Amino acid sequence: MIRLIVLSLLVVCFFGTTAWGADPCIDCHREKTPAAVRQWEVSAHVGKVDCAGCHGSDHEALLAGLVKVGAATCGRCHEKALHDHRASRHGMSLHAGWGCTRNQPDRDVSGCRFCHEEGSTLPKSKVQCARFLTQSPEMRELGCNRCHQVEDNCGSCHSNHMTDLAIVRSPQSCAPCHMGPDHAQWEMWQTSQHGGLYASMGGEYAPDCQRCHMPQGSHNVSKGLTSPPSMIPYPVEKRTQAREEMLVLCAECHAKEFARRELAQGDGIRDQSLELIHEAKEIIIDLKDRGLIDPAPEERPPHPLAGNQLVLDGQMLYEDYSHIERLFFKMKKYDLAKTVKGAYHQNPAYTHWIGNAELKMDLVDIKSEAQRLQKTQVLPVAAPDPTANLERELQTIKNRFDRGALSREEYDRQRNALLETLQP
Amino acid sequence: MIRLIVLSLLVVCFFGTTAWGADPCIDCHREKTPAAVRQWEVSAHVGKVDCAGCHGSDHEALLAGLVKVGAATCGRCHEKALHDHRASRHGMSLHAGWGCTRNQPDRDVSGCRFCHEEGSTLPKSKVQCARFLTQSPEMRELGCNRCHQVEDNCGSCHSNHMTDLAIVRSPQSCAPCHMGPDHAQWEMWQTSQHGGLYASMGGEYAPDCQRCHMPQGSHNVSKGLTSPPSMIPYPVEKRTQAREEMLVLCAECHAKEFARRELAQGDGIRDQSLELIHEAKEIIIDLKDRGLIDPAPEERPPHPLAGNQLVLDGQMLYEDYSHIERLFFKMKKYDLAKTVKGAYHQNPAYTHWIGNAELKMDLVDIKSEAQRLQKTQVLPVAAPDPTANLERELQTIKNRFDRGALSREEYDRQRNALLETLQP
Amino acid sequence: MIRLIVLSLLVVCFFGTTAWGADPCIDCHREKTPAAVRQWEVSAHVGKVDCAGCHGSDHEALLAGLVKVGAATCGRCHEKALHDHRASRHGMSLHAGWGCTRNQPDRDVSGCRFCHEEGSTLPKSKVQCARFLTQSPEMRELGCNRCHQVEDNCGSCHSNHMTDLAIVRSPQSCAPCHMGPDHAQWEMWQTSQHGGLYASMGGEYAPDCQRCHMPQGSHNVSKGLTSPPSMIPYPVEKRTQAREEMLVLCAECHAKEFARRELAQGDGIRDQSLELIHEAKEIIIDLKDRGLIDPAPEERPPHPLAGNQLVLDGQMLYEDYSHIERLFFKMKKYDLAKTVKGAYHQNPAYTHWIGNAELKMDLVDIKSEAQRLQKTQVLPVAAPDPTANLERELQTIKNRFDRGALSREEYDRQRNALLETLQP
Repeated sequence: MIRLIVLSLLVVCFFGTTAWGADPCIDCHREKTPAAVRQWEVSAHVGKVDCAGCHGSDHEALLAGLVKVGAATCGRCHEKALHDHRASRHGMSLHAGWGCTRNQPDRDVSGCRFCHEEGSTLPKSKVQCARFLTQSPEMRELGCNRCHQVEDNCGSCHSNHMTDLAIVRSPQSCAPCHMGPDHAQWEMWQTSQHGGLYASMGGEYAPDCQRCHMPQGSHNVSKGLTSPPSMIPYPVEKRTQAREEMLVLCAECHAKEFARRELAQGDGIRDQSLELIHEAKEIIIDLKDRGLIDPAPEERPPHPLAGNQLVLDGQMLYEDYSHIERLFFKMKKYDLAKTVKGAYHQNPAYTHWIGNAELKMDLVDIKSEAQRLQKTQVLPVAAPDPTANLERELQTIKNRFDRGALSREEYDRQRNALLETLQP
Repeated sequence: MIRLIVLSLLVVCFFGTTAWGADPCIDCHREKTPAAVRQWEVSAHVGKVDCAGCHGSDHEALLAGLVKVGAATCGRCHEKALHDHRASRHGMSLHAGWGCTRNQPDRDVSGCRFCHEEGSTLPKSKVQCARFLTQSPEMRELGCNRCHQVEDNCGSCHSNHMTDLAIVRSPQSCAPCHMGPDHAQWEMWQTSQHGGLYASMGGEYAPDCQRCHMPQGSHNVSKGLTSPPSMIPYPVEKRTQAREEMLVLCAECHAKEFARRELAQGDGIRDQSLELIHEAKEIIIDLKDRGLIDPAPEERPPHPLAGNQLVLDGQMLYEDYSHIERLFFKMKKYDLAKTVKGAYHQNPAYTHWIGNAELKMDLVDIKSEAQRLQKTQVLPVAAPDPTANLERELQTIKNRFDRGALSREEYDRQRNALLETLQP
Repeated sequence: MIRLIVLSLLVVCFFGTTAWGADPCIDCHREKTPAAVRQWEVSAHVGKVDCAGCHGSDHEALLAGLVKVGAATCGRCHEKALHDHRASRHGMSLHAGWGCTRNQPDRDVSGCRFCHEEGSTLPKSKVQCARFLTQSPEMRELGCNRCHQVEDNCGSCHSNHMTDLAIVRSPQSCAPCHMGPDHAQWEMWQTSQHGGLYASMGGEYAPDCQRCHMPQGSHNVSKGLTSPPSMIPYPVEKRTQAREEMLVLCAECHAKEFARRELAQGDGIRDQSLELIHEAKEIIIDLKDRGLIDPAPEERPPHPLAGNQLVLDGQMLYEDYSHIERLFFKMKKYDLAKTVKGAYHQNPAYTHWIGNAELKMDLVDIKSEAQRLQKTQVLPVAAPDPTANLERELQTIKNRFDRGALSREEYDRQRNALLETLQP
């Protein structure tokens, strides 16, 4: 609080008391949205960019929600950052992973390149995300869009009004999205030797997210990566060039040839891990060919993009499927990323225990489950035989009714249906 | 160490060399419990509250363990803190969750309100915790009471003798209890944008645990919460008031209506998540009605409160039950909290992957397991047929005996029993 | 960067401009390996130990990779550290856990004591690690050796050229190896009251890894431990002495008798947890005696040390086994360590939820799986009956061929084999 007051006083002294008192928005918004004003007052923008500079001065349009402070607004001053950002995966978060990450009807479709090659009207790939389509509106907002809406929202990383560089230069600003079971970069960096060195010696001596993935403030976070999130490597030319770009950064601290060998070992681990995924996938496809997936794809609610097909690729759901598919989802979406990213980020616990060991143990479980499905296929379908267990079935629906899980009408209907089975 | 010495010297200069040398306890305890004395010497209490001030001067009672420095002792000076604390869930940790968290015969039962409405002798609910009752004395102490004994122990958060405010004003002081699979508030805050802002800008600009849950040093940590740990929302009036209290705090940094919408999305996610729990619960109850839970509740060691009943509520154990109940326990106790608290704490990875995705995948597994139980019910019970496999059974108990898992007597008994099955 | 320049300038002023310019290596290596030179320049070694001091001056041998800067090199000056290190488990990382952690043909075998009692040629125990033997060369390097090669590599913790004490005195320098599912010491300390106190008050007032396990800079990290990683306690004399050594450290902050009781509670939890492991192990051995492990040990790729035996000890693999063994591996390797180390490190969430609850829930699953194996043993083996399902089998291999999982030759072979089953 003291720091804030002192800073405010300094600013006041420097620019004169009316420097931004003259801003027609401030006096009123100090009441209406005091935090936004306070944060702006301690930001790098104060005295340079006022409210209207970003938000415009059409108050009616603002109140109607028609004005958006998107990346283009920031790019008017921050040209290079915007250019880099647009060239990176962050700049096309529509396309994160294999599919589209958002499906809002009002999304900005001017960015044709996300879905089409230049000059073509054919979609590059399915541009909707099946997992997004199965979410509730609330989960889409808090669960999906928080991370997958960065292409037009500089505030995602920079915070909206308080643009202190310490915020975005902290590796922790990457954590909220780059963490968790699907890509635990934050956790694996933080507990690696790199992260430990950073904790004790600071960013000057130790690599953090920005040092390797945003060198010299570049906003092209995809530079130096040899594969997209699927882990399937880019064509040889593209990935060779990317590797050389990364090695330039490694060489700031390491002998370049040492770093080359280390990253090549990561490549080996990537290829071996992809083979385990492939092995598991083959088992499941064979089961499906033999009609042993239970429930079968055609008995489930349809997949929003593929209908009643078995889906094991980047559009795989994590609901309305079977136990063996859950095991595969964990392998493909979680274990693979932990193993391979763990190796590239030099974290032995992720590479081996949290990644590789889980991959192999899940493959064991997939084989066990496949064996079980083949054994139990001979057993009759589970539909209860009401004539043989009439009393028990009547009691079951009575219990449901008693605990409020069945309405009176539904209870009566089911009861009558059961009693009718008594008829000869 | 230097800091400690300098501080000690300053204190000595200020109060004079005998200021606490005069304390009858210090000279001796500098030998007996040197750390306690040293910590007190750098605490805010030095020069104000001496040993007897908290511990009393009846040395015999002290040695006999009859004197307790409980919350009331601290409350003699820290009146408001004690009052707030007692009004909060921390102040009634007996009642955390749905049941009592401790069952010691010597617990302080003067706090009638924990178990009874004012003026009533009927218990409000079961006030013992079934999970506590099944623990060993050691696990009760290190596993349960470390967190569930805060109602009368200010030292749980403040440390006993070194009462530096930096300790309890650090959000990390909340971590030891508010972490882990059942309520990962620490992890989800730390990796949220709020936590990241705190890491780079400090508590002045960023919200930590205390800023939102203990504003202005309030010890009523339950203020502003719309549901108890069960996630089932409070009655509308209570939760509406709580929400408004929280929004006042959000509005220190955000537009209030923005914050209201965000928290309302959290409410939506809570309701949707509770529905998934309900769906899973119905499946399990139906299985039980059909006699398909294996082992059945009546075949297990009795639940310490409910006996041989199926228990799926807040008193559910995590032992002596079946695989499908384990899946449900994870959904109800872990996944639900991660999803909903993740949403309220604005952590997308917890809300979606660590929470919601697990909820839905566990529901898949519960359905798969229910299907399997229905299929395999037709199979004979597993009791080995000794006449058909006499040789194998004899070998099995021989192996047990050889590796020391059976005593000679028990081996002979089992062996004779097996051989008797040969009789016509 | 500024700090680096200022330091460099200071050093230059102090030692004179040619102080290390005279070093025959520097001028050239400032070009070839600039980072190594820069890091050395800000290290404690500058002005005391030059390149040749550690690396020697035989440039040809260096280029040929024949020169190694091992622990003995450092020990020429750091005698006590080397001595302590060699007496500790860190100094015999060959022997971490129960088996050897590395199997490279070129490993330094001069350290006979790792495998043999002095004067004996009999191996003390199996000195190879089965899990290491099943890894790819890349996983051995990035996954295993990163942590299990510390016995002769001081740089594992100290970093190679920048030997700032802040690096190794930071508890985070222990994190890269002492984290993760098999021994989460880093996570459990960091979120314990000890870790929280450290975060707010620093290492002067709060215990970190080094304070308890490397007191006064001792490199004997095994001092004060009452059991090896297996958790099976040392003989009474050895563990009693170790406990007393640890209590001396506890007593720096706590009443010694309080600390003794706390650690004794940890012992109790250790014994109870080992009993749960034992119970699970007995179930699996009985299943094996009855031929119910599926796939049976004799149907699997042989264990690299034990062949087609069931292995449930410290040499247990996590691949090529069955689902019930996976459950046991998790109990024994992960849950046990989390429970017991959680108790000794005073972390209630690890002790109870992350440890004990998982132990008990995994035991439930092991019992459920054992029951299932006993039930489904009556079912026919899963081999598909080609005559009954000829069309489906033909389609299955056709699909495999179409998606590239079968070569033309293999497809033809399998197809002909299927068609032959039609012959009478």
